[in-house]
Amino acid sequence: MLIFVGLGLYDLDDISLKGLQAIKEADAVFLETYTSVLTGTTIEQMREKYGKDLIILKRQDVEQKPEPILTAAKNGIAVFLTGGDPMVSTTHADLRIRAHEQGIPTKIIHGSSIVSAVSGLTGLQNYRFGKSCSIPYPAPKWFPKTPLDTILANLKQNLHTIVYLDIQENRYMSVHEGIELLEKLMEGSTDSIPLFVGIARAGSNSPVVAAGSSERLKLVDFGPPLHILVVPASLHEIEEEYLKNFAGYDPQ
Amino acid sequence: MLIFVGLGLYDLDDISLKGLQAIKEADAVFLETYTSVLTGTTIEQMREKYGKDLIILKRQDVEQKPEPILTAAKNGIAVFLTGGDPMVSTTHADLRIRAHEQGIPTKIIHGSSIVSAVSGLTGLQNYRFGKSCSIPYPAPKWFPKTPLDTILANLKQNLHTIVYLDIQENRYMSVHEGIELLEKLMEGSTDSIPLFVGIARAGSNSPVVAAGSSERLKLVDFGPPLHILVVPASLHEIEEEYLKNFAGYDPQ
Repeated sequence: MLIFVGLGLYDLDDISLKGLQAIKEADAVFLETYTSVLTGTTIEQMREKYGKDLIILKRQDVEQKPEPILTAAKNGIAVFLTGGDPMVSTTHADLRIRAHEQGIPTKIIHGSSIVSAVSGLTGLQNYRFGKSCSIPYPAPKWFPKTPLDTILANLKQNLHTIVYLDIQENRYMSVHEGIELLEKLMEGSTDSIPLFVGIARAGSNSPVVAAGSSERLKLVDFGPPLHILVVPASLHEIEEEYLKNFAGYDPQ
Repeated sequence: MLIFVGLGLYDLDDISLKGLQAIKEADAVFLETYTSVLTGTTIEQMREKYGKDLIILKRQDVEQKPEPILTAAKNGIAVFLTGGDPMVSTTHADLRIRAHEQGIPTKIIHGSSIVSAVSGLTGLQNYRFGKSCSIPYPAPKWFPKTPLDTILANLKQNLHTIVYLDIQENRYMSVHEGIELLEKLMEGSTDSIPLFVGIARAGSNSPVVAAGSSERLKLVDFGPPLHILVVPASLHEIEEEYLKNFAGYDPQ
């Protein structure tokens, strides 16, 4: 059996009781570290807490050489751990399909995810979010305009946008970097984004949430990763109140 | 202090370790039962598991008479429990603002939510979802067309839609009811929705996930609540594979 377990947002204690139980009963425990990471703990602490060895997986281990995972799932209970909620990424969907095609039963144990946590952290109402987007670190000759297009299309429809910031091996895009990349994409155009909300360390005891213009957010020290960015549409009354109370928002 | 704790999707064991710890340390524990419910457990079982009394809150207790909650939070640690992830509803945002305005520290402990779980259950990619909508039970002279408008606008932009089904006191809208209401809204028009995905009991050990035309889904027994509906846009290859494997989808 192959059980996908979401570790939740930030540290060791964000996993569900059900998820922890699955780990304890597992014959093999895999941890993927390429779509998300728990910045509030370490692999050593996880090993200690679970009392299990953890097999660390990079992208190519899952996408190109998944046989060890599938073999473990054929011979016993294999648990596949991922930060947040599993399956938000295509790469997990593909692994579950491969398992199913080999007759291996699969199951998902969900975890807390930034997808819903943004509403709690910002007060921006869930049903007002449009399509989300991601900003990748630009590569030589590759600097896609898609994230900006998505944000502007949502703003036109008066919808909020979640902007995922790139996660690479030991390199996590910050709110400041994300805003700068968006500004670079807008250079020479009449497009503008009047309001941003930056979030750092969602799920921790002291997340930083700050709302304002790009100028204001550049003065905010968001601290260590993970960061995420939200571009709000025009605010409803309660959303504005919330950002004033919990994100230092000043409409003036 | 006022701590909002998300109970997660389905039963007693969907809460995070952090959330359970907060309950154990609380001086007063409130449970709201009007925006969501855990259908996989009972209030009695919760009381037993937590070793605490639970104060049950209806909508008017939170929105019109929140003083007992705020007083408890002033005098000690008050925990406010809600199914899923807190704050996805406006009513919680309002309570947190009131607490903050009275100088009461607040905190959120997130839980698993259908907002991200739909991606795992259906394989439909998170970044392809547009604005979500809800179908309410119609009242005399009140049968809003908004949910259909949202679905059709998303389809035009090739975006998936999460369709929340009404939750009332002891009355939970089913996938079948939701589809019938949408069909009623389309009567006499040329609008059509070619593909639905119905989900029942997300987060449980045996969720039902079924994809197909309205005719096919009407033949599926989804079982007890909670139900939710998704209207997919045109499917990417991996999404189609996923629905074939895990939702009995047959494109023919």
